[in-house]
Amino acid sequence: MIKLEDITSPEFLKDLSISELEDLAKQIQTYILETVSKTGGHLSSNLGVVELTIALHYIFSSPHDKIIFDVGHQGYTHKILTGRAKDFPSLRQKGGLSGFLKYSESGHDVWEAGHSSTSIAAACGFLEAKASGKDIGEVIVVIGDGAIQNGLALSSLNYLAGKTDQKAIIILNDNEMSISKNVGGLAKIFNNIRIKKSYRFLKRITPRFIKHLFDWLKRGLISIAYKERPLTLGAEYKYFGPIDGHDLKTLIKYFTFARNTNRSVFLHIKTTKGKGYPFAESDKIGTWHGVGPFDIATGKSLKEIKPGYTSWSIGISELLLKKAKANPQIKVISSATICGSELNEFVQELPNQIIDVGIGEENAVIMATAMAKEGLIPIIPIYSTFLQRAYDELNHDVARTCAHIIFLVDRAGIVPADGSTHQGTFDIAFLSHLPNFIITMPKDLTEAEALFDLALKTKAPFVIRYPKYNTKKQETTSESLMTKSFVTKMTLGKWEELLPIQAINVIAYGPVVNKFKEIITEEKMNIGLINALFIKPMDTTFLERLANKKVIIYEEVIGEGSLTQAIAYYNTLHKLAIDIDAYHLENGFLEAGTVKQIKKELGLDIRDIIEKYR
Amino acid sequence: MIKLEDITSPEFLKDLSISELEDLAKQIQTYILETVSKTGGHLSSNLGVVELTIALHYIFSSPHDKIIFDVGHQGYTHKILTGRAKDFPSLRQKGGLSGFLKYSESGHDVWEAGHSSTSIAAACGFLEAKASGKDIGEVIVVIGDGAIQNGLALSSLNYLAGKTDQKAIIILNDNEMSISKNVGGLAKIFNNIRIKKSYRFLKRITPRFIKHLFDWLKRGLISIAYKERPLTLGAEYKYFGPIDGHDLKTLIKYFTFARNTNRSVFLHIKTTKGKGYPFAESDKIGTWHGVGPFDIATGKSLKEIKPGYTSWSIGISELLLKKAKANPQIKVISSATICGSELNEFVQELPNQIIDVGIGEENAVIMATAMAKEGLIPIIPIYSTFLQRAYDELNHDVARTCAHIIFLVDRAGIVPADGSTHQGTFDIAFLSHLPNFIITMPKDLTEAEALFDLALKTKAPFVIRYPKYNTKKQETTSESLMTKSFVTKMTLGKWEELLPIQAINVIAYGPVVNKFKEIITEEKMNIGLINALFIKPMDTTFLERLANKKVIIYEEVIGEGSLTQAIAYYNTLHKLAIDIDAYHLENGFLEAGTVKQIKKELGLDIRDIIEKYR
Repeated sequence: MIKLEDITSPEFLKDLSISELEDLAKQIQTYILETVSKTGGHLSSNLGVVELTIALHYIFSSPHDKIIFDVGHQGYTHKILTGRAKDFPSLRQKGGLSGFLKYSESGHDVWEAGHSSTSIAAACGFLEAKASGKDIGEVIVVIGDGAIQNGLALSSLNYLAGKTDQKAIIILNDNEMSISKNVGGLAKIFNNIRIKKSYRFLKRITPRFIKHLFDWLKRGLISIAYKERPLTLGAEYKYFGPIDGHDLKTLIKYFTFARNTNRSVFLHIKTTKGKGYPFAESDKIGTWHGVGPFDIATGKSLKEIKPGYTSWSIGISELLLKKAKANPQIKVISSATICGSELNEFVQELPNQIIDVGIGEENAVIMATAMAKEGLIPIIPIYSTFLQRAYDELNHDVARTCAHIIFLVDRAGIVPADGSTHQGTFDIAFLSHLPNFIITMPKDLTEAEALFDLALKTKAPFVIRYPKYNTKKQETTSESLMTKSFVTKMTLGKWEELLPIQAINVIAYGPVVNKFKEIITEEKMNIGLINALFIKPMDTTFLERLANKKVIIYEEVIGEGSLTQAIAYYNTLHKLAIDIDAYHLENGFLEAGTVKQIKKELGLDIRDIIEKYR
Repeated sequence: MIKLEDITSPEFLKDLSISELEDLAKQIQTYILETVSKTGGHLSSNLGVVELTIALHYIFSSPHDKIIFDVGHQGYTHKILTGRAKDFPSLRQKGGLSGFLKYSESGHDVWEAGHSSTSIAAACGFLEAKASGKDIGEVIVVIGDGAIQNGLALSSLNYLAGKTDQKAIIILNDNEMSISKNVGGLAKIFNNIRIKKSYRFLKRITPRFIKHLFDWLKRGLISIAYKERPLTLGAEYKYFGPIDGHDLKTLIKYFTFARNTNRSVFLHIKTTKGKGYPFAESDKIGTWHGVGPFDIATGKSLKEIKPGYTSWSIGISELLLKKAKANPQIKVISSATICGSELNEFVQELPNQIIDVGIGEENAVIMATAMAKEGLIPIIPIYSTFLQRAYDELNHDVARTCAHIIFLVDRAGIVPADGSTHQGTFDIAFLSHLPNFIITMPKDLTEAEALFDLALKTKAPFVIRYPKYNTKKQETTSESLMTKSFVTKMTLGKWEELLPIQAINVIAYGPVVNKFKEIITEEKMNIGLINALFIKPMDTTFLERLANKKVIIYEEVIGEGSLTQAIAYYNTLHKLAIDIDAYHLENGFLEAGTVKQIKKELGLDIRDIIEKYR
């Protein structure tokens, strides 16, 4: 038995027998399951590619051969085989192992990402460097069946097909549908009946194009392909598939062939997501894709939410469902985050008012623009970091034509465990300069509902952003009752004076204003507090009232393009002589940590800030 | 003979005979040629779709049937048939007819764009609205063979294929390869030999994937398709093609079928770009795609450039060629703007140092990131307005990893005739908040060369932006000699004191600083002039010197995220008490006009501004 912690390089694999490799696979599966049950992380995708990754490192010589993992959230086995098992207990924690691949962790991580579908274009870049004489071996891409349907991936696949003088090995890690042992030997590769059957479970959350993509690939990359008898046709890929992704012997055979041939190869490999862990294997909706700590025996989450609290995602999703039930013109468009955005219940209850376009934020935004033009009210729940993928459409289509679309921007601000690729720290910067856009952030769910109602009747692109942490459930607590009076008179662009204006004042938005209020009140300090729930348009009338006063502006986003800069600009031009102290991020690419740790380190701890003004 | 100016609606077409329609087509072709020869505009694409557009309006009932033109630069016939012939003399001029489709011009313009490949996603949106009960007839897309290869188009095509309960008519306007009369009757549709032959002319500028896309479509949307005997296969489109796009009778037959069937239809129509005008028909590199005024008989441009002057695009392209000859590590990546960015000579001289990825800005940026990682120096010449299509990649891949890529951002700032979709007024806003990015704008080609040299040795993403107008050729005039002394000591982030600091000073960047200098000197005014060639990082040491002085900041971009805001912010935080007068755009979506007209109207006329400080 190999001690995983002692592995320093994947070279040792080349001396193992198939049965030893198989034992290693089981050992790694157990190790990943146990680690992730404690740290949380991407479970299903990693359990699914253990054999695949072992086979890759057995046949290819990383890092001279470039193994490019799309997204990189399926890289745990790769990390273990390249000497990082000992660091696993620190996974996704401050200073610890990243949940994705990372240049700074290992020379074997040849491509670093967090957003999907960049891998094939990256391969094209590596191949170009190779063509220019750089010392690069084989170029291998591992990409999932969700990611390959994204436009970027499809267009680079198309581009690559034209480069007959360059060779890439594309591995489609198809894990949506489980492998049946008895399919492999049949002449017909895609058993349509089986696909349709298993597909039925998915159709409400994943549109039929998963099946259709395979039709494309099947008919596009090949005309007819029989396992063991690949036919090379007009297009520039040799296609093989489906290949059992858990059969090491088969994988090694295909990878050997792929290495030795001189043409681009497309290997369609079927893997079982969550392989080896029954709860994850039988997951049909993606619950086990990314998880927090859980109990292995029961599959129960160990993360407890305080009674009376809920996650912002759930809270907003419930609001969305309520509003959509009342208004059939509402149409929700998700881009592959039904689970992450907690929309499963919506899918169950109002299947006709929700569409999932897959990983295609650009499509979602364009479709919404056309739908808005015809009088529907499209609503796009989307993570802040993924919204940026549709920047051109937000600018050229939505802002320019002032389309009435509501964006529910989830995971806005500091995102704890996913690191630099998943931060919600740029959205205000890339949205605030777009004409016609309204950008808001509520402090609680009651305010969120009021903003939602305002968004429904405001004929302009309307952003409601909320963070990735928990919030009080929407109840008639004294808190929300107090807010109520403000809500009923909510006016576009009007800020809320939460604590009366003083010589020193805080301007903030989002749930942090509650924290400011709590601390200022608790410490009995003479500090005013302004809830700038409208980040754009800002309340310039209110700003005028702050002339000659000290204002602390607090934001959990980057400074450029922020409310702080807008206020500073207004202050300068209108000579208000507001004395501004600014607290925000200098760089939006934050590494993993708890929100508390990150804020403390960056000087954004609210208590620390308030203490300075004692 | 129909008087085109009297047409008010396309309804009249339905009463015409085929031969009358054919006469009308000829008449419109002549009309477009004559008009564009005077106004400039998109010539080739419009001449190519005259019959196609007539047939569409003959069969379908616009605007109840939604005819969606991708990009909309091929909409001249559509404009003529929907009552806008009389406005053609004002094409692309201030207050005149737009060069693209425009909601405000006609209810028949059901989709408005300027960036490519949004049409299929728009169709998906219209179909969703139709499914929700909106009163919409047929949904028809007209998309070119370049635009359909973009990721957005491919992924929405994939999405649409999954919607079996929705019907769209997709018309692929394939105008890269000319139709041969004798192909139509053959059983084999794609005559590979012919394609390869005509392809040879194109290969330097358009990679082989044009051919390969057709292989995809051919094998992907159908298995085998014979003209007149369409086979419907697994995927959800009925495919027909190729169809002669200049044969009205045939077009009408297919459109009738497409209207009457209940399944999605994909019509592959071959058209001749520039049809009817020999110079444009024989154009192999795209010279006749977008043109200025020209003499019809000789094909010669009527636009004269003052002796000693050149366009910024040509000037920068010459610099690029010079640098690339000296450094084989330089690799240029274009996304379908070889012609527009004046790179034809580069393609001729250094074919191995340039790649065209087609309309795929995201691919270009990701490929560049991978290439930079392997030690090449990728350079991306790109229009400002198209760079925004790769915002996610600029953020997540380039900025986050500080990739050494040089962006030559063409058509930055105010763009005259193309209107709201093509302005270069947002790039500073969407780039300035990206960590690691360096953003510059030279005042002349000598300074551009110095910045280029600096960019080559600075290991960070480096933007050199330049406008769409002309500039002095790089010569040893007294002007450029004077600059020389500054160039030799050029330091990253250091501004140039062009006229000594005074009580009143101008901060500007780009060629406009020359205009400021000329006017201030000519008028003998006591105004200092600072050339802020580094927009980011800005020269804060210089800013300190401006404390308590008046500063006029002039920018031809939107205010949010601009240098002005960065200066105002610094001013506020460091209490410099700079008295700022800001001149910039309030909204980046400018309509067509000459640069002079636009600036005058927006209060950005430099002489007008300086006069205020007399």
